[in-house]
Formats: sequence, C-alpha cells, structure tokens
Amino acid sequence: MVTCWDVIIIGAGSAGLAALREVSKETDKVLIINAGQYGTTCARVGCMPSKVLIESARALHDCNKLQGFGIPGGQQIVADIPAMLRHVRDLRDHFVSGTLQATEGLGERSIAGRAKLLGPDTVEVAGQTYRARRIIIASGSRPVMPAAWQELGERVWTTDTLFEQQDLPPRVAVIGLGPIGLEMAQAMAYLGVQVHAFDKSHTIAGISDPQVEKALRSSLEKDFSIHTGVDVRLTQQGEGVRVEAGDLSVDVDRVLVAVGRRPNIDRLNLECLGVPLDDHGMPPFDPATTQIADLPIYIAGDVNHHAPILHEAADEGYIAAHNALADAPTAFPRRTPMGIVFIEPGVAFIGQRFAELEPDALIGEASFATQGRAVAAQRNEGLMRIYARGSDAVLIGAEMCVPAAEHMAHLLGLAISEGLTVRQVLRMPFYHPVLEEGLRSALRKIMKQIPCDDTDLARCGEFRIQALD
Amino acid sequence: MVTCWDVIIIGAGSAGLAALREVSKETDKVLIINAGQYGTTCARVGCMPSKVLIESARALHDCNKLQGFGIPGGQQIVADIPAMLRHVRDLRDHFVSGTLQATEGLGERSIAGRAKLLGPDTVEVAGQTYRARRIIIASGSRPVMPAAWQELGERVWTTDTLFEQQDLPPRVAVIGLGPIGLEMAQAMAYLGVQVHAFDKSHTIAGISDPQVEKALRSSLEKDFSIHTGVDVRLTQQGEGVRVEAGDLSVDVDRVLVAVGRRPNIDRLNLECLGVPLDDHGMPPFDPATTQIADLPIYIAGDVNHHAPILHEAADEGYIAAHNALADAPTAFPRRTPMGIVFIEPGVAFIGQRFAELEPDALIGEASFATQGRAVAAQRNEGLMRIYARGSDAVLIGAEMCVPAAEHMAHLLGLAISEGLTVRQVLRMPFYHPVLEEGLRSALRKIMKQIPCDDTDLARCGEFRIQALD
Repeated sequence: MVTCWDVIIIGAGSAGLAALREVSKETDKVLIINAGQYGTTCARVGCMPSKVLIESARALHDCNKLQGFGIPGGQQIVADIPAMLRHVRDLRDHFVSGTLQATEGLGERSIAGRAKLLGPDTVEVAGQTYRARRIIIASGSRPVMPAAWQELGERVWTTDTLFEQQDLPPRVAVIGLGPIGLEMAQAMAYLGVQVHAFDKSHTIAGISDPQVEKALRSSLEKDFSIHTGVDVRLTQQGEGVRVEAGDLSVDVDRVLVAVGRRPNIDRLNLECLGVPLDDHGMPPFDPATTQIADLPIYIAGDVNHHAPILHEAADEGYIAAHNALADAPTAFPRRTPMGIVFIEPGVAFIGQRFAELEPDALIGEASFATQGRAVAAQRNEGLMRIYARGSDAVLIGAEMCVPAAEHMAHLLGLAISEGLTVRQVLRMPFYHPVLEEGLRSALRKIMKQIPCDDTDLARCGEFRIQALD
Repeated sequence: MVTCWDVIIIGAGSAGLAALREVSKETDKVLIINAGQYGTTCARVGCMPSKVLIESARALHDCNKLQGFGIPGGQQIVADIPAMLRHVRDLRDHFVSGTLQATEGLGERSIAGRAKLLGPDTVEVAGQTYRARRIIIASGSRPVMPAAWQELGERVWTTDTLFEQQDLPPRVAVIGLGPIGLEMAQAMAYLGVQVHAFDKSHTIAGISDPQVEKALRSSLEKDFSIHTGVDVRLTQQGEGVRVEAGDLSVDVDRVLVAVGRRPNIDRLNLECLGVPLDDHGMPPFDPATTQIADLPIYIAGDVNHHAPILHEAADEGYIAAHNALADAPTAFPRRTPMGIVFIEPGVAFIGQRFAELEPDALIGEASFATQGRAVAAQRNEGLMRIYARGSDAVLIGAEMCVPAAEHMAHLLGLAISEGLTVRQVLRMPFYHPVLEEGLRSALRKIMKQIPCDDTDLARCGEFRIQALD
C-alpha cells in the first residue's frame, strides 16, 4: 500500500522551496524530490555569485576614478583574480548554506533523485512510486549549450562552470548579451580580461527602446567590443577557441556561452498527463494559478519559462502551494514586470516596454551626463526614458541605462504597480542632490505634455543645480 | 517718479532664483536684489561641495574594502588632500556657474546690494528706493558662530570657510552633529583626520528613534569619537584649540562649528511692516502660501526657517512667485517631510517621526547586517524602522541608517505621500538581489501585525536568500 502525500514538490530550488515553506504551514504530508545539486540556481550559479563577482570587479574599476577625486595611485591597483574568485565561491557557499537549511531535517520527506511522472498523481523516483493529491513541478532550468560547441570541452563555459574557475585567461568571448552575458562581460573586462561580446540579436540587454540601447552601447564599448546581429561559429584553435562572426575572426582562450536557459522538463515524462504539449514540450498552464490545464498539477519557477527570475519564481512557488492546498485554484494578480541588469550604467525596465507602446504614449527622458549628483560621484552617464498614457499621464513603463538603475526601477515599479500618474509622483519629495532628481526631470518632461493646474507643486519648475553641458 | 515693479525679489539664492524663474514667465517687471556672493548656499557652500568631498572621501575609504574583494594594495592608497580640496572647489565653481546664469543678462533688473524694507511695498538699496506691487523675501541664512568663539579666528571653521582650506590638519573637532556636522566629521575621518565630534543634544543626525540612533552611533564610532549631551568650551591653545566638554579635554588643530544656520532677517528692517515679530525677529507667515500676515510680502527659503533644505526652498520660491502674481494667495499642500544625511550607513527620515508616533503605531524593522546584497557589496550594517497606522497599515513614516538610504527614502517618500498601505507597497515587484529586499522585510513585519487575506502576493512569504547570521 502506497502512502498518499498531500503534496509532492519536484525540485528544491527557489520556487520549490518557496512552495515547501507555504505547504509546510498547513501539512506535514509533503514530499520534496530534487535531482542534482541542492542550493538553488540563484544561490549557486545565478544571482548571488554573479553579484559578488560584479561588486568585486566594480570595486577594482572604481580605482580608476580615484585620480579624479584627488587620490593618486588607483591605476596601480591590480586584482588578485584567483583570490577574487575564491571570495566569490566563499560567499556563494555561504548563501548556498542558507538555502540548504530549508530541506534539512525533513528526513524521509526529502528525496534526492530524478522524478518521473507516471500520471497526474503519481511520481517515480529510482524505481519507487509515490502518490500525492497534488503535485508541484519546480524542476528549474539549465544553461543552453549548443551541441556543436560541447565538443570544445573546458574551452566553453556556462554560468554552471564560470564561478568554478581558478583564474581568468587573457582573452574571453561572451556569446549572448542578455543580463547574465552582459554582466559577466563587463565584470571580466573590468578585471583586465580582453572581452569580445556577441549576440545574434541586434540589441543588447533586452532593451527595446533604441535610444536607451544606443546610450548603453556607447558606455559599454569603452570596456569591450560588442558585435550584434551576428551568427557565431566556434572552432578549436590550439588551447583556445577561434570565434568567427561574419567577417570577424578573433582568437580567445575561453568562451562564456550565455544564450539562455532551458526548462528542465525533458525527463519529467509530461506526455503521460494526457494534455497537449507545445513544440518545446511544455504543457498549457495559467500563470495566475500555475495550474497545468485542469490537472491537480502546478508548475512554478524557471521550469515554466514564464518569468524566469527569482522574485517571480518565489511568487509562483507561493501561488502553487496555495492552490495545491485549496479545493479550487485562486487566480493571483501577478506583479508589474521588472528586469534589472547589474552593469554600470545599470539597465532596468519596468512595466510596459517601449516596443509595446501605443503611438500616442507620452515619453519623458533624462540624460544623466550632466546630472549634479552623478557628476559629483563620477557616474554621469546614461539615459532614462519613462512612458505614460492618457490626459492624466498614468505611468505605464520605463526603460533606462543610468546610475543606480536598480533603485530607480523600484521607485517606478511602485508607481506603475499602483497606477499612479506622473503628477502624483511629482508631488513626492525629491531631495537634493540625488540621482532621483534625474528621474524627476524625465517626469517633468511628460508633465509639460499634458494640461495642468498651476496651483500644484507637481508643476514646480525644475531648479537647475546641475553641471553645465 | 519711481518705477513700480510687479515683483521685487530680495535674495538670489535657491528660493529667490526659483521665484525669479516663475515670475519671469509672467512679467519682465521683476527686480532681484542680492547682498554678498551670488551662487546659492547650495552650490557654493552647501549641498554640492559637501557632496563632492563626501564622494571623494568615500572613494578613499572604500579602498579599505578592496582586500575583502580579493584586490590587494588598497590600504596603501593615500589621498592627496590638497588635490582633493582643489577638486571640490573646481566642481563647486562649476555648479556655481550654473546658478549664476539665472541672473545674467538681467541688466538693471538685477542689483547687487543689501536691501532694507521701508514698508510693505518699498525697498531701499544703497540709498535708492524701489517700489513693487509685491515683494518676495528670500535672503537665506548664514552659519551660526557663537560670539565667544569668533576670537579664535582661523582656528574655527564654518561651512563658509571649510571648503576654502588648502589642506586638512591632523586633528579636527566638529561641534554640532546635525546633517552637515556628521557628514563632514565622517568625510574628514575617512581622509585620515583624527576627528572628535560633539553635540549638546543627546542624539545625533536628528534621529528620534533610539534604536536607529544606537545602530548609527555604533557604526560611526569605528571612525571617530562622539560625545553627546555636552556643552563645549573652546580656548586657544598655541596654534590650535583646546576643546573641553565635561571631564574631557582634547587639543585639536581646527574646529568645524556646525551648530545651525541663522535666517538673514536682522538687517531687513522687518519692524517697519507693522506686524508682530517673534523672539527671533521673525514675522508671522503661512507655510502654505509663504505670505507674511496679510501683507503683499512673501517669505521663501531658508530665511523663513520653516524647512531649510533645497527642495523645500525651491518649492517656496515657486509658491511665493505664484502668489505674488495672483490676486489672492493660494494655499499649496506641502510635501511629505524628508531628511537625508549623506553618511555611510546613510541616514534618512520620511514623514512622521518616531517621536511623533501614537502609542498604537505599527512598527516594522529590518537589520542590514546579514542582508544578501549588502553582504555582497560589503555594506552590511544599519537598521531601518518603518511606521504605519490602523488596521490597514497605512504607511506614515520611517527612520533609518542603512546602505543606499537616499534611495530607500524616495521609495518610502512616494508611498507615504500617496497614503499607500503596507500591502499596496508589498504588491510591487522587489527584484533580487537588491537592498530594497531589506525594506520589504521591514514591511512584512508590519504585515504580520494586521489581518490579511492569503490570496494576495503581498503576503508572499519571504524567500530566504541572504547571508546567515
């Protein structure tokens, strides 16, 4: 006789652990099954180690600014890259250990192994069968590595192997200029690696606003070369790799392949569920409930490819858990979309993208080239574009490459989530001198495009304490 | 026959120039009179030079963190302080030149000289009389220097003289630990100056929340000594100054006196207006209109001592201008109060202060000691406390000393200005890994204190990707 669990969770990553946390509040009859390494993509090979490397690389790069502040000797500072990579792994291990606690002490309720579905209420792991009232699939994703490049062996990295390196070679190519590709390209360039960056798309960082993309590109190209709209061919060249893209041919020591991540669905046997799968093998599911069709199965986190970033994965784990415990699923309103690329100037997009705007959308922009605080901090570069709609200028989105973009993104994220108008945001206090005054400039440019009552501080004229052009 | 101007503005500082800008949209018959240096307190001796010095000092201090990132040699970096101070003045001059443009080309409509009121529509400058339908007083403020200390001559500085120094001596006392005192104390300490800091108050940075104040003090005391609740006695000691405070006696080379700023009203002859003046010689005025009593006179900026910070001065200049041009004054709703002290960890307060809370206020707090991103950036210190009220937890205020406080302050400033609830803010996206996740932790602690519907992502449990305690 087989035990019937209340919930089986497949995957102990960010989404699975979020689900476990919520399910455990209601029942002990929860089983979590994980294939491969524990510790979450975020903590082990994603957000956290990348951010430590970025912070370290930026600290070195900032030494170049010391002279401008009246501090000599900054240019002589050189990184001990093996020590830096050890630091990345030390902190990585620290963050991973935090996530491991979530499954410690679960005993028989936690199984290491590869789960295979036998039906909508049955899972097999290593020949053993487990039944549950509800199943949550949260098996995550893995980096894409084209088959043709696999034979290059250790010459090609993904984020699964990058942070394991003991040192960095003199020349690296980065293929794929989404968030992780750009972040690592800039970090390695800051560390003195000669970086050549490639993407088959014509844009970088996922930016859809051509003006923002152009501003970013001109900032980044100070530190590494960028080749877009190209198909890349990699061939072994001695100990390294020859990268050919159109007319260009460049020899590098290693290649970081950052062309995306693939959902871990291929060995789940989703075919057994009796629902149609799409060309990628993905079953139909509702992002508001995470439910697959009308089955007692929920799919959460990177594996569903809906919004493969940590805070969305955590939300989906939460949603899946609640619905797995409920008689009928609840549709949760999802959050305003937000993306951040942790480079300098920082990239962020919130809400509606430029590419999605109606022709009559209002646009306000601000350059940070002469923004007062940015000048004082030697961070004066970049462009912010904010989008609004209607005669009351409701904020709907933004794209930007600016200093402190991650903070600007959250301020605008709140405004857009709450459906605030430009005027409402302009009624808040903007201190001086802060980078948010740049954001205010962009909002004021929208304000000038709509009718306005003068007896309102939102209309208060921009007082010009900033560097001259 | 005397020309009658539409508006006379006394003072070409931040408030006066904001007023000039607005008035000039409606009339050319505006006269601006300025005593002493042009260039605004903000650009010449306030916000801007202080921020340049702070950014420079912080850049040096951050070199101490390089080792922790795997970058050797940071401790050997030493500032060229004369070069740094030249850089401060160079950028200061750059910012000042921006403000000077505002009065260029005004010809006879701009007068350098000291204005004296002869009545509610008459001003005298250098024996010449000028009449106007309306007058805007925006004569600013100046640093307080107690008479007993003036005889110490060049041994005592204010912010009027600090940025003119060619070098910094080995030992400096700072008297007064409000924003500017603390900012300069930390900056000089970062630059290797032995700093001793004093305040007659028992708290520092204007923080009213004892827990935040305690957290800040323990951070700051790593770099300089802090003595509060003491009266200070200064006496000449050779080329330097002996500072005595209670049992303590310490000899320093120079003393920065930062005990506040005094409104420049003493030579305006406000007595002639026929309205009662308070003990400080200040006439009654309405902050919502800036109007003095029912006179055709408006008082804006630092001179009215209402909210002597730049963005409020700019607002008041705007309000004064609009009302000076109107038949009847309009009461403008003022902005949510906000204060920022640009130190590390940064201090900010927004909205209602801890000291003003009702006993049943809800409080949520978050330490940044183990916050994931703060750890990655080696900025993991500080405490945030957020205040809310009622069963729906409307945000009403916050006090904090945390990394990126200036950015947190603006996010909370928007929420508080718009009267948002904690739940509304928790519905926005919080990316990962960002410092705003610390702010979210504080909000979630408030959320736990109120009744809540589970089918709401605002309640989504905190997913723990952070360093361990």
